[in-house]
Amino acid sequence: MNTLTGVGVSPGIGFGPAYVLAVHADPVPAPGARHGGDAGAERDRATRALEQVAADLEERGIRAGGEAREILNAQAMMARDPGLAVEVAVLIDDAGVTAARAVYEAFGGYREMLAGAGGYLGARVADLDDVRDRAVAVLEGLRMPGVPDHAERPYVLVARDLAPADTATLSADVVAAFVTEQGGPTSHTAILARAMGVPAVVACPGALSIEQGAPVLVDGSSGLVRLAPSDDEVAETTNAAAARKAVLAAATGPGTTSDGHAVPLLANIGGPRDVAAALEHGAEGIGLYRTEFLFLDRATAPSGQEQESAYLEVLNAFPGGRVVVRTLDAGADKPLAFLPPRGEEANPALGERGSRLFRTNPEIMNEQLGALARAAARSSAKLQVMAPMVATAEEAAWFVAACGDAGLPSAGVMIEIPSAALRASDLAAEADFFSIGTNDLAQYTFAADRRLGALTMLQDAWQPALLDLIALAAAGAAGRGKPCGVCGEAAGDPALACVLVGLGVTSLSMAAPALPAVRAALSRHALDQCLLAAQAARAAVSPQEARAAARSHLPGLAGLAL
Amino acid sequence: MNTLTGVGVSPGIGFGPAYVLAVHADPVPAPGARHGGDAGAERDRATRALEQVAADLEERGIRAGGEAREILNAQAMMARDPGLAVEVAVLIDDAGVTAARAVYEAFGGYREMLAGAGGYLGARVADLDDVRDRAVAVLEGLRMPGVPDHAERPYVLVARDLAPADTATLSADVVAAFVTEQGGPTSHTAILARAMGVPAVVACPGALSIEQGAPVLVDGSSGLVRLAPSDDEVAETTNAAAARKAVLAAATGPGTTSDGHAVPLLANIGGPRDVAAALEHGAEGIGLYRTEFLFLDRATAPSGQEQESAYLEVLNAFPGGRVVVRTLDAGADKPLAFLPPRGEEANPALGERGSRLFRTNPEIMNEQLGALARAAARSSAKLQVMAPMVATAEEAAWFVAACGDAGLPSAGVMIEIPSAALRASDLAAEADFFSIGTNDLAQYTFAADRRLGALTMLQDAWQPALLDLIALAAAGAAGRGKPCGVCGEAAGDPALACVLVGLGVTSLSMAAPALPAVRAALSRHALDQCLLAAQAARAAVSPQEARAAARSHLPGLAGLAL
Repeated sequence: MNTLTGVGVSPGIGFGPAYVLAVHADPVPAPGARHGGDAGAERDRATRALEQVAADLEERGIRAGGEAREILNAQAMMARDPGLAVEVAVLIDDAGVTAARAVYEAFGGYREMLAGAGGYLGARVADLDDVRDRAVAVLEGLRMPGVPDHAERPYVLVARDLAPADTATLSADVVAAFVTEQGGPTSHTAILARAMGVPAVVACPGALSIEQGAPVLVDGSSGLVRLAPSDDEVAETTNAAAARKAVLAAATGPGTTSDGHAVPLLANIGGPRDVAAALEHGAEGIGLYRTEFLFLDRATAPSGQEQESAYLEVLNAFPGGRVVVRTLDAGADKPLAFLPPRGEEANPALGERGSRLFRTNPEIMNEQLGALARAAARSSAKLQVMAPMVATAEEAAWFVAACGDAGLPSAGVMIEIPSAALRASDLAAEADFFSIGTNDLAQYTFAADRRLGALTMLQDAWQPALLDLIALAAAGAAGRGKPCGVCGEAAGDPALACVLVGLGVTSLSMAAPALPAVRAALSRHALDQCLLAAQAARAAVSPQEARAAARSHLPGLAGLAL
Repeated sequence: MNTLTGVGVSPGIGFGPAYVLAVHADPVPAPGARHGGDAGAERDRATRALEQVAADLEERGIRAGGEAREILNAQAMMARDPGLAVEVAVLIDDAGVTAARAVYEAFGGYREMLAGAGGYLGARVADLDDVRDRAVAVLEGLRMPGVPDHAERPYVLVARDLAPADTATLSADVVAAFVTEQGGPTSHTAILARAMGVPAVVACPGALSIEQGAPVLVDGSSGLVRLAPSDDEVAETTNAAAARKAVLAAATGPGTTSDGHAVPLLANIGGPRDVAAALEHGAEGIGLYRTEFLFLDRATAPSGQEQESAYLEVLNAFPGGRVVVRTLDAGADKPLAFLPPRGEEANPALGERGSRLFRTNPEIMNEQLGALARAAARSSAKLQVMAPMVATAEEAAWFVAACGDAGLPSAGVMIEIPSAALRASDLAAEADFFSIGTNDLAQYTFAADRRLGALTMLQDAWQPALLDLIALAAAGAAGRGKPCGVCGEAAGDPALACVLVGLGVTSLSMAAPALPAVRAALSRHALDQCLLAAQAARAAVSPQEARAAARSHLPGLAGLAL
C-alpha cells in the first residue's frame, strides 16, 4: 500500500519525513520496581518530577496562550494535586516501590474513578494520562512526550488527532503537512492548518501505520497521502503546486464574477496578529474578527481601554474598508474565569454559549460594545458588529437594541442555528446584516458534532440540506434589502464559493490563505453560471452528487487545476 | 408571596404537604473531630459505612431498573473505590481523625480533581457528593438523603431538579405533584410526571423557598403553585379538575375532527408495563415503542428470544391495531455496556447515537429487526419499525434496506434532525412513513439542550421555526403519498395537536394520560379550523404570538377549560 486516502481540508502540497505521534507511548514502570531503601530521597524525587511537569506545562501554556493555555494550566493543576502527593508518599513509604511506579499507581486510582464514572470523562482521562506519562518520563530519564517545535527540515506530522496542547507552539517552518486518522473538515487540526497555510489531510484510515521518519508526500486538495514517493513524483507534484500558486497570484483586486458582479472577499481573523496574512492575500476587509482571545486566558475581564486598542489596531489596517467584529462567543467549552457557568452542561454546544450568556449578564457585552464604538469613532474603517448564537427574532432585536444604545451604527447576527435560517425574514426585520457560520450551522442541522471524525460525512458543506438553509437565509435577507455573507469554512472552497454566490450570498470571508483560489474561481465564472451551479447542487440528494452537479456548471475550475 | 409561577408540563391539580429536597443538606463533620485512639476500629467503621452505602445504592438500582440502575451502580463503584479506602485509612491512622471526617476529606481530594478539571465534570461531582453525604450520614447516625418512597398522604415533591436516581422508586400513590426550580417541558421530571399522570410545574423560580411540610396546591396546566391555599380554594380547584376529567372521559372512540377527518391517536410507551395505561386511555395503537429498556441495564445484548417476547406482548395488546417500534436509540448518554463508545464525545446529543451507532456495528440492529419480524409473524397487529437519528436520505435507504432484509413490511424514520425535515421529500422517497420527534427536533433546530432550564423558551413547541419544519416534513411525506405522525411531547398539547393536524400531520402519539384531552379537542374542531390555526401560528414571530393566534381559531378549547 503506497497511497492512503483521507479528506483534504487545507490545500497545497507538503513533503517531508513523517513524525508519527504515537497513541500509547506511555512508559509503564515495572510493577515490582522497588527503591533502594531511602524512602525520603525517593519521595523528594517524585515531588520534584511532578513539580517539573507542572512548571513545564504552565510554561508551554504561556507560550501558546488562548484556549491552549487553559487546558495546559488544568493539567498542571492535576500534577500538583495534594491528594495525589499523599498517595505517592504512602506507596513509597509503605509499599517500598520506586517513585516512578508510585506515581504510576497513584494516578491509576484517579484514572479508574474518572473512567468508571463513564460518559464524558474520557477526554479528561487522556489529559490525566498525559500528565502521568510526563512525570514517569522525567523519573525514568526519558524524553517527555509531545511534538517537537523545531526541526532541521519540516516534518509531516502524523497523529490520531491533535489537541490544542499538542500544536500550541507549532509553525509552518516546522510542519510541512498534517495527516490525522480522525477529525473532520472543521476539526481543530483542519482549522489550524488552514490558518497556518499548511496542507492537511484528515479522516485518513491507516495514517498511524506510517513508519517514523518515512518520506511522505501530502496533497491537501485531493486528500491523497503518498508513502515513499519517487524523487520524480515529488519534483513533479511540487512543481505543479508552484505553477498553480503562480496562476492564483495572477488574480488580484476585489472579488468579482467574470461579468462584474461584486462579491467582497474578506478574511477571518482571531486577533491583530492575523492581519498581516489577511493583507498579504488581498483581503478587502475582515469578515469575522473573533474576539475570544481578549477574554479567555485571564482571571478578570479586559478593560475597555485594552479592548479598544485591540479593535483599533485591526480597524486601522483597513482604512475605508469593512471590519466585522463578532462579540464574545464564550461559555460552555470556552468558559470565562470571571463569569463561571451557571451549571454543568451535558452538551455545551447546545448550552448557554455566545450571546445567550449575556442575556442574564449583559455588563460584559455592554463593555465590549462600548469599546467597539470608541474604536470606530477613531478610525475610518466601517465597523460592523454581530452576535453569535442567535436563534430567534426576539434575540436579534435585543442585540440590535444593545448596539444602538452603545452608538454602533451597524448590528447584525450570525446565522448558525437552523431556526435563524428558517426564520431569516423575521430576523432580517431586526438585524442590519447576516453572516452565515456554516460550521456550526451544519453541526446543528445534522446534529453532528463538528469535532467527531466518525460523522465527517454529515459535516460536508455540500450537503443539500445545508445549501437549502443558506438559500433561505440569503432570500430572507434579500427580501428586506439586507446583505448576507458567509464566514464559515465553506466560503474557502472555490467551487462552493461560486455556489454560495449563486444561492444569493453577498460576501465571502475565509482563512486568508484561501482567498487567492476563491478570487480566481469567481473571476472565471459569470453570475448565471453560479446560479445554475447552485440550482444543480440543491437538486441533488447527496453531497457527492451536489459537488459533481455544481462543478459541471463551473468549467473554469478545471483551468485552475483545483 | 402566595403564588409562584412556573411552566405547567403535566396537567392536573395536585395538593399536599411540600417535601422539599434540599440542594445542600450535606452534613460536614467538624475539621478537628478525632477518634478515641483505636485506629483499627475506626477504620473498620469507615469500611463498613462505605460498603453499606454501596450495597444500598445497588439495591435501589435493582428496584428501579433501567437507566437509573446504571447511574446508581456507578455511584456504588465510587463508594468502593480502592484509592479512596487507602486515603481514608491514612487519615485515620496518621492524622487521627474520625471515620466521618476521614471519609469527608478523602472524597474532597477526588472532588477537587473532578471540579478542577472543569467542563462536564460537575454532574459527576454531584454524584460523588451524594455518595459522600450518604457515607457521612451512616457514620454520624443520620438519615440518608433522598426522597421518601412511601408516605401517609401524597406529598408535593419540590426540588431544584430531579435526577433518575432521586425518582427511581416513586409512584403516583406517594407524589401528589412535582415542582422544580429548573428543568423544561422535555426535562426528565416533565416526562416522568406525564408518564405517571402526576401534575408538574417546572422552571418555577422560588420553589426552593417553600417551607418543608407547608400545604401546596399545584396546577400542572397553568403552571401556578399556590402556597397555603384556603380550604375553599382547594375544594373549588379540585372539584373543577374532577369536572374537567368527567368532560374528557365523555369523549371516546377513535381520534377524529368534528367533520370526520380521522387522526389516529396513539400512545408512547417505554415497555410492556405501559400498555395498561395506553388501553385505559383509549389509545388506538402504539405510536412510539421505545426499546431501550431491553438493552440498557445489562452486560450482554438481550437474546433474540427475549426481545421477541417483549415485542409480542405489546403487539398482542392491539389485535388488528398499529404498533410502531423505534429501534434501539442508544449511544452517548445512554451507552451500551456491550458496545462501548468509540471515543469520548464532548456533546453526546450531537454524537454517534441512535441508528448512527449501528452503521459500523449492524449486528445488534439486525438481531433486533429479526426478533421484530418473528414477533410480527405471530400477531395480528400491524407492526411498523422506525429508526432514530436519521439525517439524510442515504441513511434512510440503508435502514429501510436492512428492514427489508429482515422481512419487515413497513420501515420508517424518525424526523428529529433538522436536515431530515428540510429534505423530507428525499427521505420520503426511501421510507414508508415518518414520525416527528418534536423534542429532539426542537433541541437541534434551536441548538438548545432540552434539559437546560435556562433555555426553556427555545424548547417551546410553539416556536414558529419548529412549526415550519413540521410543515416541511408533512408536505414532503404527502408529496410521496406517505403518512407523517408526531410522537413528541407536542402531540399531547390539545391546542397544538389541532395545529399539527392543520400542518398536515396524519397521526398523533403521546403519553397515555394526554389522550383524552387531545381526543376531546380534535372532536370539537373541523379540519378547516385546524388549517387556519396552523396558518395563523406559522405567520407569528414568537411562540407566545403563535399560541394566541392559533387559539383564536380554536373556540372549542374554551369549552374544555384547557
